[in-house]
Amino acid sequence: MTIETATATGTGLSDQARAALSVVSTATLTTQLMDRGLRNTYLEGLGALNPNRRRMVGEAFTMRCIPAREDLDVLSVFQDYDHPQRKAVESVGPGAVLVIDARGQKRAASLGHILATRLLRRGAAGIVTDGAVRDAAGFEALALPTFAAGASPTTNLAQHHVVDMQLPISCAEVAVYPGDIMVGDRDGVICIPRHLAEEVARDAAEQEDLEEFILEQVESGAPLRGTYPPDAQMRQAYRKARSKR
Amino acid sequence: MTIETATATGTGLSDQARAALSVVSTATLTTQLMDRGLRNTYLEGLGALNPNRRRMVGEAFTMRCIPAREDLDVLSVFQDYDHPQRKAVESVGPGAVLVIDARGQKRAASLGHILATRLLRRGAAGIVTDGAVRDAAGFEALALPTFAAGASPTTNLAQHHVVDMQLPISCAEVAVYPGDIMVGDRDGVICIPRHLAEEVARDAAEQEDLEEFILEQVESGAPLRGTYPPDAQMRQAYRKARSKR
Amino acid sequence: MTIETATATGTGLSDQARAALSVVSTATLTTQLMDRGLRNTYLEGLGALNPNRRRMVGEAFTMRCIPAREDLDVLSVFQDYDHPQRKAVESVGPGAVLVIDARGQKRAASLGHILATRLLRRGAAGIVTDGAVRDAAGFEALALPTFAAGASPTTNLAQHHVVDMQLPISCAEVAVYPGDIMVGDRDGVICIPRHLAEEVARDAAEQEDLEEFILEQVESGAPLRGTYPPDAQMRQAYRKARSKR
Amino acid sequence: MTIETATATGTGLSDQARAALSVVSTATLTTQLMDRGLRNTYLEGLGALNPNRRRMVGEAFTMRCIPAREDLDVLSVFQDYDHPQRKAVESVGPGAVLVIDARGQKRAASLGHILATRLLRRGAAGIVTDGAVRDAAGFEALALPTFAAGASPTTNLAQHHVVDMQLPISCAEVAVYPGDIMVGDRDGVICIPRHLAEEVARDAAEQEDLEEFILEQVESGAPLRGTYPPDAQMRQAYRKARSKR
Amino acid sequence: MTIETATATGTGLSDQARAALSVVSTATLTTQLMDRGLRNTYLEGLGALNPNRRRMVGEAFTMRCIPAREDLDVLSVFQDYDHPQRKAVESVGPGAVLVIDARGQKRAASLGHILATRLLRRGAAGIVTDGAVRDAAGFEALALPTFAAGASPTTNLAQHHVVDMQLPISCAEVAVYPGDIMVGDRDGVICIPRHLAEEVARDAAEQEDLEEFILEQVESGAPLRGTYPPDAQMRQAYRKARSKR
Amino acid sequence: MTIETATATGTGLSDQARAALSVVSTATLTTQLMDRGLRNTYLEGLGALNPNRRRMVGEAFTMRCIPAREDLDVLSVFQDYDHPQRKAVESVGPGAVLVIDARGQKRAASLGHILATRLLRRGAAGIVTDGAVRDAAGFEALALPTFAAGASPTTNLAQHHVVDMQLPISCAEVAVYPGDIMVGDRDGVICIPRHLAEEVARDAAEQEDLEEFILEQVESGAPLRGTYPPDAQMRQAYRKARSKR
Repeated sequence: MTIETATATGTGLSDQARAALSVVSTATLTTQLMDRGLRNTYLEGLGALNPNRRRMVGEAFTMRCIPAREDLDVLSVFQDYDHPQRKAVESVGPGAVLVIDARGQKRAASLGHILATRLLRRGAAGIVTDGAVRDAAGFEALALPTFAAGASPTTNLAQHHVVDMQLPISCAEVAVYPGDIMVGDRDGVICIPRHLAEEVARDAAEQEDLEEFILEQVESGAPLRGTYPPDAQMRQAYRKARSKR
Repeated sequence: MTIETATATGTGLSDQARAALSVVSTATLTTQLMDRGLRNTYLEGLGALNPNRRRMVGEAFTMRCIPAREDLDVLSVFQDYDHPQRKAVESVGPGAVLVIDARGQKRAASLGHILATRLLRRGAAGIVTDGAVRDAAGFEALALPTFAAGASPTTNLAQHHVVDMQLPISCAEVAVYPGDIMVGDRDGVICIPRHLAEEVARDAAEQEDLEEFILEQVESGAPLRGTYPPDAQMRQAYRKARSKR
Repeated sequence: MTIETATATGTGLSDQARAALSVVSTATLTTQLMDRGLRNTYLEGLGALNPNRRRMVGEAFTMRCIPAREDLDVLSVFQDYDHPQRKAVESVGPGAVLVIDARGQKRAASLGHILATRLLRRGAAGIVTDGAVRDAAGFEALALPTFAAGASPTTNLAQHHVVDMQLPISCAEVAVYPGDIMVGDRDGVICIPRHLAEEVARDAAEQEDLEEFILEQVESGAPLRGTYPPDAQMRQAYRKARSKR
Repeated sequence: MTIETATATGTGLSDQARAALSVVSTATLTTQLMDRGLRNTYLEGLGALNPNRRRMVGEAFTMRCIPAREDLDVLSVFQDYDHPQRKAVESVGPGAVLVIDARGQKRAASLGHILATRLLRRGAAGIVTDGAVRDAAGFEALALPTFAAGASPTTNLAQHHVVDMQLPISCAEVAVYPGDIMVGDRDGVICIPRHLAEEVARDAAEQEDLEEFILEQVESGAPLRGTYPPDAQMRQAYRKARSKR
Repeated sequence: MTIETATATGTGLSDQARAALSVVSTATLTTQLMDRGLRNTYLEGLGALNPNRRRMVGEAFTMRCIPAREDLDVLSVFQDYDHPQRKAVESVGPGAVLVIDARGQKRAASLGHILATRLLRRGAAGIVTDGAVRDAAGFEALALPTFAAGASPTTNLAQHHVVDMQLPISCAEVAVYPGDIMVGDRDGVICIPRHLAEEVARDAAEQEDLEEFILEQVESGAPLRGTYPPDAQMRQAYRKARSKR
Repeated sequence: MTIETATATGTGLSDQARAALSVVSTATLTTQLMDRGLRNTYLEGLGALNPNRRRMVGEAFTMRCIPAREDLDVLSVFQDYDHPQRKAVESVGPGAVLVIDARGQKRAASLGHILATRLLRRGAAGIVTDGAVRDAAGFEALALPTFAAGASPTTNLAQHHVVDMQLPISCAEVAVYPGDIMVGDRDGVICIPRHLAEEVARDAAEQEDLEEFILEQVESGAPLRGTYPPDAQMRQAYRKARSKR
């Protein structure tokens, strides 16, 4: 499959785009995406498990779950090292974000702490699931940004059956294609279609720099009129201020 | 893929099993499934669009949708006769039931009346979706059992992107594997794992025959004690009554 | 327990009140109840399974379910004729309505067709559940008003454990005390606290008679002003019209 | 307010557009709207109360409800003929559709049968609410298309406070501006922005005529390829067939 | 409009009431409101974004959103300094709380960090929305109590259209009239009808003083009997203790 | 009632089991329960109010709420020291966990800070409710593990009527029988059926010890293959390492 190969070879993001995406906010990025006609890029309802490490950027590596069936999803299946979940974890490469389609169901977990630790060791950039994770205390202490819909102690087999990986999926009702760029911060997680990542990163950095200037003006007491959005005079003041840096 | 081939070749159900499944109720079938440890076989929340043709039996042919993306899912994609949705419809064989994973989202439809008509012509046995269908009036008049979570006039592109077919899916939070047996009646739709279909069909027919006898007794005023479940005496009366048929 | 005994002895409703409650609408009754400070008497979300027999009046006989547990709720428990569900059904008396607290969960049924048939034979006046019933086709053909949140083929043991009867319960987030009066019609089911039933029945009959008169005026083209609510002149016309009957 | 006046004077739809909108399906109309970039025009979740009279077309007359407050929303307020709800009903003109913002709350009704009868007498074209109506049996017998999220016997005062009319509102999470064109059929209700109504009506009529032809071909056994969408040859056949009419 | 003027002139709360409302808990206040027949004064589901500044008191300044429409709600509308959202922000006066009706929808934000900063500069007392805010990290650092249903990076235009201000609204299914008193603390936000604010403030302060005394007794090991609620003896002890302060 | 007595006499857990349950994670415990066929033991959706004291173990003491009725649930009922809620609190013994069936409704609280303080003084081991608590700030400061679905300032009477205690209940859609063992940690709360507690505690301690060893290996860079689950060689390494302790 073409998509999968592309991901594997990881031509990936330019260093410049990755750098920009590591600092601009998801708020700025969604505005850039909306400007390009995309209104549904935010994975609503997912929170950061480790608040001090919630800044995340990386290519999506997708994994899909369907509901468990009592005769298929029994504890003994984990004896198989090639169980799809195990296999997926051992396929995630450096800089990638494991994105799990758990159908928004969180009565049972969709990933646990030991597998997350393995992902960290493999160089993964983060974890995103619209389900739950188990052993949340372990995640809190792990140096791997993780965004989930909740925590649940119950093993995934009670509700989920990992069926395949690297196919386009739904996560929190947003389409995620393998290789798309996932970005996370305090507001949550967004998905940037791969082909837009470079230009969105560039324009977002510019937008954010201007908005920081605007914020300073508003903090100093400037009214919205003339300031937000900036009129010609304010834009000139901005350019002047930035030229001094 | 082995599963897909198996479906294609359609060794299918024995005539006897198919005949039994065409008359026994989904209520009886779920009891047989629960007796085998399966508690989650009912696709909750789907209703019959054509109440007079709600009895349905057939092998599952699966189709999966992820959320639409505004730049990919535009009306012009339908110009492609190999668009996954069209291709899936033209792949459903005689006696099969098209089962759609629409993530339970019904703001837009997951299938329309023209495609359903094509399915009927191809000999399909039914349609099941956990999303909506459009032009419900057309479905009401169509001789094809259809179970859906609702109706919506909006074309699927506004919310859905058909991505693949004949993979295991979730439908109404039940696992459906290609080739599983879908059965529908007034209570809704259930999914019988393929390997259990023959024995479940046989045992369900027996159970239902007994329960009809019990119902007659209760209708005649018999108390539950001794009758439901039947004690030794009642079972003897049953065998005697049946031997006369 | 006092309440239980009171129900058992069934001093019940006066014939006059029962007659009135058999014809006035639930719309009128809820207005009478709101006039007495009760705003939460409607069991939202329950529909009639047998549309031609949806008029229902009777004293509540309550039954409570908690979630099933896999080791306790197995098919063999039904071998016990004193299983709480069976016992409850055999305890419902003539004119009573079986009201089931199913916690609003309808993935599995909370009652089936055979037990409902037994209730009919025992003289029950109806069934109300905030869960589902199974074999809905059977219910449709049964001469027993039944209101439920849905249909499900799955046996109650998959989700419900009947634990006791004739205790105060929640049904569709309304408090139902044993002996309260349940009334059902096209708009659904309401619960009238026992001690208010006589006066509410009387006042509702009066209100409804007046509103029928008003409706006739509006149908004849009268504007709301002066008519709804009726001013002094309209009230006089009403009395005059009624005196002729 | 300009919008309100425009509605009052009712320059309204052209006869041609109104005629077209009276026969084309909401399915066709939403496709036309999506072609113009509008993906959220369907009021999900509303059903027709009077199935035999569910075809509806008319200009929106909006009414807004906020939650009730126990001290303000008491039964005596209805003594005031200028109560906003009564006033709104007496302001709806011929051909208009009363559209109610009930915040999707249906524990209590947002309109009753007597007021609906008055609307019918005033020449209204229909009623749309994302809440409930009371005395649904009355609505079933009324010659006025009514679409609602449900039925509830409880008077609106228990949950709703009508606060104003003819302001832009939300109904079932769709923006409805006074004067927009509401169309209803078996699939439910859609809202066409006023300024697009003429062109959408025209193009929808054309689209539907073509799709009827396509449907005939599919019914006759034509495969999707070449037929749906129609290729050059099929379009020629269509034109030829239509020229004969 | 009378209400609006009254708010504008801002006769406002007495200093005494404001002082009391700044220290008593929302728990005590809702009890006082329930004692006056008001059971629905709590805006369920809203959390404080800046936990260290979650104590809030102020008059409600309302703003209403309806769903966005793709052709109206485009990024360029923000070029207009008189856009309703901007105008509302520049109309909020010192001591007021901006209360936003976002219909409980939080896929997109209903307010961002720059506008919140402007509100702070204008002397606003807080922000309440039943939708989301964007750039939550900015809010966390802002000295302005803010209660929201969640965070979302997406600009409000993707889902919301600000339509008017200072009209009665619904916020989290509670009626909020301009000028009502909004109070927030760890338990969330409540709305006190304007005309009850003075007496509720006074009685709540008294109640809370007594409950603090009771809590001390319970902490010291006193049983509920005699203590909570306090009997005559305990009330005497309370008065004695307080007389010493 | 036998169950109640058993609880009262509190033969309780062995010291060894209690010690084990005080350190093993709920994640490990649910795996042990699933291994015994129990898939629904986790009370989804409840969070710890006092994050620093979220480790909890104790026998369930159950309390049940039904919806409030305006005429029964008035503030004056609290004058009765034998009000069921007060009585239940004064019946909870040392080491027990008060588990409240609040039907998942959290618009009003199901318990307040003063009663919780009393429970602490009585030696209770914790509080679990699928509803809300009021005065959450007080709970945060209380040395009593408390798990709830949310916070609400509103007194329980506005929505709840405490009806009985020590009956089997539903809490967050899990069956809880009096005397069952409740365990809470960062992932939330689980319920262990009483008769399984000893063996589950023992096996969980063993499992957890092994998983700690596995985690160390994964942290050191070991791949999943051979490590998780451990193959024969890894198990030997584990035994060797443990023998040195």
